[in-house]
Amino acid sequence: MDLSYLSFNQITTNEQTLEEVVEACVKTGITWIAPWRHKIQATGLIKSAQIIKEAGLKVSSLCRGGMFPAATATERQQRLDDNRRAIDEAAKLGTDTLVLVCGPAPDRDIQAARKMVEEGIAALIPYAQEAGVKLGIEPLHPIFAGDRSVISTLGQSNTLTEHLASSQVGVIIDVYHVWWDPQLYNEIKRSEGHILGFHVNDWIKVTNPLTSRGMMGDGIIEIKKIRQAVQLTGYTGPIEVEILNEALWKEPCEETLKLIKTRFMEYV
Amino acid sequence: MDLSYLSFNQITTNEQTLEEVVEACVKTGITWIAPWRHKIQATGLIKSAQIIKEAGLKVSSLCRGGMFPAATATERQQRLDDNRRAIDEAAKLGTDTLVLVCGPAPDRDIQAARKMVEEGIAALIPYAQEAGVKLGIEPLHPIFAGDRSVISTLGQSNTLTEHLASSQVGVIIDVYHVWWDPQLYNEIKRSEGHILGFHVNDWIKVTNPLTSRGMMGDGIIEIKKIRQAVQLTGYTGPIEVEILNEALWKEPCEETLKLIKTRFMEYV
Repeated sequence: MDLSYLSFNQITTNEQTLEEVVEACVKTGITWIAPWRHKIQATGLIKSAQIIKEAGLKVSSLCRGGMFPAATATERQQRLDDNRRAIDEAAKLGTDTLVLVCGPAPDRDIQAARKMVEEGIAALIPYAQEAGVKLGIEPLHPIFAGDRSVISTLGQSNTLTEHLASSQVGVIIDVYHVWWDPQLYNEIKRSEGHILGFHVNDWIKVTNPLTSRGMMGDGIIEIKKIRQAVQLTGYTGPIEVEILNEALWKEPCEETLKLIKTRFMEYV
Repeated sequence: MDLSYLSFNQITTNEQTLEEVVEACVKTGITWIAPWRHKIQATGLIKSAQIIKEAGLKVSSLCRGGMFPAATATERQQRLDDNRRAIDEAAKLGTDTLVLVCGPAPDRDIQAARKMVEEGIAALIPYAQEAGVKLGIEPLHPIFAGDRSVISTLGQSNTLTEHLASSQVGVIIDVYHVWWDPQLYNEIKRSEGHILGFHVNDWIKVTNPLTSRGMMGDGIIEIKKIRQAVQLTGYTGPIEVEILNEALWKEPCEETLKLIKTRFMEYV
């Protein structure tokens, strides 16, 4: 894929500060970046926005809001407050997209938790609209259904988007989370007009579900086929490279970025 | 749940021989067993059948056939030959159900692999019919889509069953593999009349996807709710307890069976 689409998702080099990552992007000619909130917090929001702006980088999304289900109304309200802060941060950083990782159930009732997700996103819409930030519902691989997200399929994200019926809400598609889904290509078509982000990486042997994502080309995902289906819906936005991999985290940041560019051209 | 439904799936105590497991079942009053092929092979088929028969145990299923996709026609033929042997073994052991774990793709083409699964099962039907053994298509959790099964949802198993349109083919439902599925209860309803087996365990924190299954009650699956939905379709067969868990494997076999009985009554 053309490198002008490449956005570097910061979690791919977990050991570096925002400054270091921005510098590496500039050096390697990557023009988009997707920061994470804990990294922004470490550097400071105002300073982070400044660093990114001065480097001339565009911000594809901020990761992450979400985590809506909780046992009590008070806790759910606190989660919403945190999401409003995330929306503010996204706006400040100059991106129009906040990625939502929706959260696990506080108990065994997964259907109730899914309802809390829908209510939570609905409650955020007016605030997001005012801030000019869209909410991207990212389905997470079912391996995370118990501890990270009760939204496990693109079908669920699409249904939520349709129910909420707001131009402020859409879906994020990450190949790691959706590649196995027998309904994938139907659901990508159904996402037409509300895809807010597209993430690439690869599926390699899973040792730790969280940190076993592979570099594009090292695994078995038909990345190009999925990318073509996503773009066929009319999506022309950036493509984030997001790889959570412990071995990769130990590599020098600039080397990783160079490798990503090569693999992006060949496998995405 | 009433203990007369309890079937002990042998992989739950991986360190013991068939003899030892059968003896423990008899001691603890468990009347059903579900053996695995590698354990049967270790003891010998004729001897295994004899041990089970003499103990008065009923066999709920044999695990497993499947693994249909392969790179060449010759290899796919070899897999079918092995499935025919599995059918023979099931018949010899006195069970009418062979569990199918359908296998991963030999390359990146998951759709082609799914087609190979359908062709493979279709090819087995006449042989299975003659032997009086049914083929149970078990969807595996999507975490296994890359290395164990391209059949990841009950929806896929149901679609396959409908396509193949043979009373010889049906589905196996294991709560570990399906609990996260937003379509679960619709798909259980759709399974009416062709459920060939129901497996219970629990979803705890995943460290190793293969061996992180929990004891009923230790995790977050709504086992009772799923069991009720399964029985509401008219399924009256045994309920296998199948727990792949390294810590549990280290416990004394009889203690495990006692614990299973308690948990089965309380949580299933």
